[in-house]
Amino acid sequence: MTIQTAVLIETLTALGSEVRWCSCNIFSTQDHAAAAIARDSAAVFAWKGETLEEYWWCTEKALDWGPGGGPDLIVDDGGDATLLIHEGVKAEEEYERSGKLPNPNETENAEFRIVLSIIKEGLLIDPKRYTRMKDRLVGVSEETTTGVKRLYQMQANGTLLFPAINVNDSVTKSKFDNLYGCRHSLPDGLMRATDVMIAGKIAVICGYGDVGKGCAAALKAAGARVIVTEIDPICALQALMEGIPVLTLEDMVAEADIFVTTTGNKDIIMVSHMKQMKNNAIVCNIGHFDNEIDMLGLETYPGIKRITIKPQTDRWIFPETNRGIIVLAEGRLMNLGCATGHPSFVMSCSFTNQVIAQLELWKERGSGKYEKKVYVLPKHLDEMVASLHLGKLGAKLTKLTPDQAAYISVPVEGPYKPPHYRY
Amino acid sequence: MTIQTAVLIETLTALGSEVRWCSCNIFSTQDHAAAAIARDSAAVFAWKGETLEEYWWCTEKALDWGPGGGPDLIVDDGGDATLLIHEGVKAEEEYERSGKLPNPNETENAEFRIVLSIIKEGLLIDPKRYTRMKDRLVGVSEETTTGVKRLYQMQANGTLLFPAINVNDSVTKSKFDNLYGCRHSLPDGLMRATDVMIAGKIAVICGYGDVGKGCAAALKAAGARVIVTEIDPICALQALMEGIPVLTLEDMVAEADIFVTTTGNKDIIMVSHMKQMKNNAIVCNIGHFDNEIDMLGLETYPGIKRITIKPQTDRWIFPETNRGIIVLAEGRLMNLGCATGHPSFVMSCSFTNQVIAQLELWKERGSGKYEKKVYVLPKHLDEMVASLHLGKLGAKLTKLTPDQAAYISVPVEGPYKPPHYRY
Amino acid sequence: MTIQTAVLIETLTALGSEVRWCSCNIFSTQDHAAAAIARDSAAVFAWKGETLEEYWWCTEKALDWGPGGGPDLIVDDGGDATLLIHEGVKAEEEYERSGKLPNPNETENAEFRIVLSIIKEGLLIDPKRYTRMKDRLVGVSEETTTGVKRLYQMQANGTLLFPAINVNDSVTKSKFDNLYGCRHSLPDGLMRATDVMIAGKIAVICGYGDVGKGCAAALKAAGARVIVTEIDPICALQALMEGIPVLTLEDMVAEADIFVTTTGNKDIIMVSHMKQMKNNAIVCNIGHFDNEIDMLGLETYPGIKRITIKPQTDRWIFPETNRGIIVLAEGRLMNLGCATGHPSFVMSCSFTNQVIAQLELWKERGSGKYEKKVYVLPKHLDEMVASLHLGKLGAKLTKLTPDQAAYISVPVEGPYKPPHYRY
Amino acid sequence: MTIQTAVLIETLTALGSEVRWCSCNIFSTQDHAAAAIARDSAAVFAWKGETLEEYWWCTEKALDWGPGGGPDLIVDDGGDATLLIHEGVKAEEEYERSGKLPNPNETENAEFRIVLSIIKEGLLIDPKRYTRMKDRLVGVSEETTTGVKRLYQMQANGTLLFPAINVNDSVTKSKFDNLYGCRHSLPDGLMRATDVMIAGKIAVICGYGDVGKGCAAALKAAGARVIVTEIDPICALQALMEGIPVLTLEDMVAEADIFVTTTGNKDIIMVSHMKQMKNNAIVCNIGHFDNEIDMLGLETYPGIKRITIKPQTDRWIFPETNRGIIVLAEGRLMNLGCATGHPSFVMSCSFTNQVIAQLELWKERGSGKYEKKVYVLPKHLDEMVASLHLGKLGAKLTKLTPDQAAYISVPVEGPYKPPHYRY
Repeated sequence: MTIQTAVLIETLTALGSEVRWCSCNIFSTQDHAAAAIARDSAAVFAWKGETLEEYWWCTEKALDWGPGGGPDLIVDDGGDATLLIHEGVKAEEEYERSGKLPNPNETENAEFRIVLSIIKEGLLIDPKRYTRMKDRLVGVSEETTTGVKRLYQMQANGTLLFPAINVNDSVTKSKFDNLYGCRHSLPDGLMRATDVMIAGKIAVICGYGDVGKGCAAALKAAGARVIVTEIDPICALQALMEGIPVLTLEDMVAEADIFVTTTGNKDIIMVSHMKQMKNNAIVCNIGHFDNEIDMLGLETYPGIKRITIKPQTDRWIFPETNRGIIVLAEGRLMNLGCATGHPSFVMSCSFTNQVIAQLELWKERGSGKYEKKVYVLPKHLDEMVASLHLGKLGAKLTKLTPDQAAYISVPVEGPYKPPHYRY
Repeated sequence: MTIQTAVLIETLTALGSEVRWCSCNIFSTQDHAAAAIARDSAAVFAWKGETLEEYWWCTEKALDWGPGGGPDLIVDDGGDATLLIHEGVKAEEEYERSGKLPNPNETENAEFRIVLSIIKEGLLIDPKRYTRMKDRLVGVSEETTTGVKRLYQMQANGTLLFPAINVNDSVTKSKFDNLYGCRHSLPDGLMRATDVMIAGKIAVICGYGDVGKGCAAALKAAGARVIVTEIDPICALQALMEGIPVLTLEDMVAEADIFVTTTGNKDIIMVSHMKQMKNNAIVCNIGHFDNEIDMLGLETYPGIKRITIKPQTDRWIFPETNRGIIVLAEGRLMNLGCATGHPSFVMSCSFTNQVIAQLELWKERGSGKYEKKVYVLPKHLDEMVASLHLGKLGAKLTKLTPDQAAYISVPVEGPYKPPHYRY
Repeated sequence: MTIQTAVLIETLTALGSEVRWCSCNIFSTQDHAAAAIARDSAAVFAWKGETLEEYWWCTEKALDWGPGGGPDLIVDDGGDATLLIHEGVKAEEEYERSGKLPNPNETENAEFRIVLSIIKEGLLIDPKRYTRMKDRLVGVSEETTTGVKRLYQMQANGTLLFPAINVNDSVTKSKFDNLYGCRHSLPDGLMRATDVMIAGKIAVICGYGDVGKGCAAALKAAGARVIVTEIDPICALQALMEGIPVLTLEDMVAEADIFVTTTGNKDIIMVSHMKQMKNNAIVCNIGHFDNEIDMLGLETYPGIKRITIKPQTDRWIFPETNRGIIVLAEGRLMNLGCATGHPSFVMSCSFTNQVIAQLELWKERGSGKYEKKVYVLPKHLDEMVASLHLGKLGAKLTKLTPDQAAYISVPVEGPYKPPHYRY
Repeated sequence: MTIQTAVLIETLTALGSEVRWCSCNIFSTQDHAAAAIARDSAAVFAWKGETLEEYWWCTEKALDWGPGGGPDLIVDDGGDATLLIHEGVKAEEEYERSGKLPNPNETENAEFRIVLSIIKEGLLIDPKRYTRMKDRLVGVSEETTTGVKRLYQMQANGTLLFPAINVNDSVTKSKFDNLYGCRHSLPDGLMRATDVMIAGKIAVICGYGDVGKGCAAALKAAGARVIVTEIDPICALQALMEGIPVLTLEDMVAEADIFVTTTGNKDIIMVSHMKQMKNNAIVCNIGHFDNEIDMLGLETYPGIKRITIKPQTDRWIFPETNRGIIVLAEGRLMNLGCATGHPSFVMSCSFTNQVIAQLELWKERGSGKYEKKVYVLPKHLDEMVASLHLGKLGAKLTKLTPDQAAYISVPVEGPYKPPHYRY
């Protein structure tokens, strides 16, 4: 719920929709933006610094349109709203079948326990709430790598309950927001949180996907010495071609000054790593959830001491060594927690994709064009998103002649590339 | 026919094949490499500085295994061998049907006239030669953007005569050879051909695909001021995000010092552009064929004067202005004509893909796995190509735990990415 | 008065000095740092957001040690304390000679009017105050280009009242703080003040000295298209060698998105320029005083409207066009006003020079080594500053053999370069 | 004796001088350039691939104007002509004093032995030749770091025989030719000599002065991972600020792929280092003489085998390990030996300085302005050199107003910077 999402909400409202909104991250809300939207445009359930309980309460409230109502469309970011509905429907079906309520104590995951509690409480009041919601829903458009991964898993399992448009894999999203957005917001977050000089420092970037590429480019350009960790040999070879060594975290853990996770996976930097780090090493995550960093391991480490330098900037001191490490945004997305997220220009690319996807879902709501599957936007819409952003930067495109278009077998007006093209 | 292809030939020979070889470019043969292979490993029909007639004579000879013989597999680069066979079969079928011989004068394209002449002469001697050849052929693997485009066109038209593996669109080809190869070989060719200082110069790169990205990165890093021309709004926006203006050729034609075509299209720099250029502007092509630059227009310009500074470096002087422009490699690929093509490490990635494709085609020759269509290599083979190249550069990969692999729904051993992933 | 200066104060205190402190910039004080120092270490006269009157009141108070006291040494940054003393002495001498008091209304410069008022008021109370102060003073060490320029002017005019060490021209200051400091703090200030995406934007940097070089490098690395303006042909040629066009402000004023002054001169961006700029163009100064930007012209422009977006970020709307420009830090140093100045590592280099200079002045206070002139630190001390900072970054130096040292005619332990060496 | 020096010779001839010329490097002559000059403009004693005996024979011949003649001015590059005259005069004075001839066997330095032999032979024919030469000489202008170092040593010892202008330390020389010239010519030489892919490789640059900075920037930009070795803590800290680790050669010797010496010192890479290197490691020198690399140690290593891949590219195989290293240009300047030296634009800056220095020496030949000391050109001439090169690159300078000029205390027309300014 940043300034940029506020403009997205205003856009959706101007297009005729009635909007309810929650945040996708407990730290990312800019309260002034939320307040302005709450006053003028939409129901907002978000503030900077929510607890996890509050976070899921907000998510539930954003979906709650009162009796007879409900969302027609979801704009999702990370997939938590989609998750809640899917888990809700699952629980309601189980309850109808067996009378069994969800048991929050069955899971070890602290956050998922909250989800189950919320569903359980809701079930006692209204045992068909999420079922009615999914019946009404026309679809969801989702913009993150992580949220999309969940959607494809549900598609593969046959459990996806409504059509989904994968906005993340529009070129104008994944190759812009993930890459250029993070190239901007990683140093922004580091500087605001710590004022550390990046030049001369050794930085380990875990993961060299689009996010990792943006992060590595930013820190290298700022004069850091960058090392990458990777599981994928192709991405690893890309790093090497840019002069960036590919090593393991273990190789660098005692030597580096800055650690950044960008993987979209879990258990990347464990407490066992953190205790080997240099004094005042900075540890942060710009990947997906806070489980990229072993926050639980850190919090429960015997004798550990936490000093909050300022909100979102904590120094954790290990008792054996008296060395402290600096963890940003409690392990959550540091560009949202410590800075203001991605800048407007790149978010405009992402959100133009979101709006186009919403319009498409709504336009085709009765046509049967979209089944309960995951779709990407067609290439000509992707190219349109780019086109809409060229003028602001003073660009002038070259026009194909019909003869040239025929020669390379594309329409004069595009789309210009085959589907497998990688940009 | 460079040193790198020599090693490819030796590899194929060591794997048990009998090889006949020709070049894909009239200027690209390194005569010492050709001589060594001719002595030790294979029949070679290639030398530096062929005429177009000699070029196609070589192509025909490379396919000529004598009575009863013929190639089982083709390793193609640009698609000329594949083209010759397809045109040959078409002509033989027409001849059988109607007794009509191909008429070279029907085409305005000087090079295609030569192709038709060769086919016509062959037809008079043996009217079933190309038909028998295609019957025997197990398949082709093709490594260039341009050759692949032709294959997809033939697939779409239903005229493809045998299975084809598109090696160009392996990530370890298009995102390495095209990008990093050209980043190396464009400045290499410029420096060898002209000794010009790149720093401070204004360079126009026509096209910002993989090749254009590599070229722009190289010249920018060398201190040039780079401007890009593009038809595709997405690629244009990528250039802008790197601080590179996107303008039209007309905007810059009178101002720039260096012009590079990378488009894979034709008619990019016309003689009408060239006469507006500054004295001693450098014009070169690293895209595909020499029709990216209007060589015909230049050669037939009334009163034009050509001074060959040295082989592959010509100064063309316009009579009205007495200004000359410097054209490299007669408009053909300047990295092959003026330097030695791409360096071994990146060619090893490309050729490992070629070898794997050839092995795959041969292994599956009777299985029916491959129809008369175009295929890309499966991702695990693409990742294998990358893996084979990591050790040389001292890289160490991180291993997924089974738990992490499950979390992101991939096998521990890969492949790690969905098919649509763009790297 | 930032965190870094707080550590400098603590260092000086630990070395035995008694410190009184004021800020060099009305916006640069970090109040928490000032508070901590005021509590623990020194008398501090500084807060964020002073008026000019308050600023000079603070400067005067910092110099006021009560009857019989006074500073032995000055650590100066911009030269305002030195200026005040020199102007004070001049007025006292004039007063003694002619009984004439300084007349604040004689100057058009609003700030200098305040200086004269303060001196005038002081003179009425104690007509020998600054004279006694200069008699006591052992010397000053000054760290900015601007402050140093004043010192050399006074040396040339024969009006310098005490020895001065030019710390700015230590290599470990001007080639580090000015260059790498600004490379860090320009984007930091831009991002904190405006959240603007730098990638894709057109940025004009006025001046390509050390500060301009750092600024240009930062914005280029972040994906902006950078243009430089210069008066000096050598610096201009340096920009060109890095691929940066050199044009005039007039050429770019209507096209650029971001304007940064780095010149150390005045009247760089005038109100006549500002009214031609695009809507929401950003204008800021990281050079020296706020007179690089014509703030007076802006403030007094008929019908202009000022909207304070947030402190230090103002939008000024021209009545004719209704276009607004965004001016940072009221035209003062934006890295201090909108961010936190330079990061600790590079300030440590600068302040190590300051401390060494202070120690040197004090040690030689009676020796006559330093006359009323401007001195730079000897090269071995400059090298020592660098040496002290290598360990933190994990560097290992190579040692000369005596034979090698003799071969290049330097001592094994350094200094290694002739005085004219430029680094 | 490259194309660029040919233009310098033509310039000097056009200005009225009579020129005799030799090369400064046994490999750097471009024979076609030498032939053209020999035909049209000057006596040339230079060819590509001289022996050391031939080299010094050429140097002697270039100074030999026949009876009654001799050079009035020397344009020197490396200082060998200056050295020969100084050693000649020393020997003649000793001979006059004691009748003792120089003894070539007294020195262990193979090259200096040749110098002494030549002097000895000359002495027997004409015992006053060099004495007359120095009496006639108006002065020398010298353009290399190494040659200048010798001049300052002679100035310090009081043995300098005629005035010298240090052209190397013009900003438009040392900060352009050394830096941007090498940024161009190092990769050029590497690519022409070895065709090696630079991306992904580990490169050790010994020395981070102007030459080392250019080399490091070039290899980093090409995708190599660069490590620097340094003796000077200030230059080391500069490397670190650019993200380049500073280690010792010993740390990296077994790991790196490319080694480049840029130090201006001797004994940098010894045979003991070379035998530890990886197979096919590339070793080259772009610093000064071939003694940066221990060529003698290599050549005399027991059992070593040398295979000349092509001229200037040798593979040296160690018997114990059977690993070979590739040494470029026999340890001499690889950009001259393996490529064509620096490109014209940057050489034009250097040679404009040379020409201005020659004009200045000649104009002031009777005025007593220049004593037997080393001088740098005054800053306004340095700025003039830059100005003359701006138009070609389309730059437009900003003009100071008189008011601005007064504010920063410089003339409107320059010079703009104090002498100690570092650029």
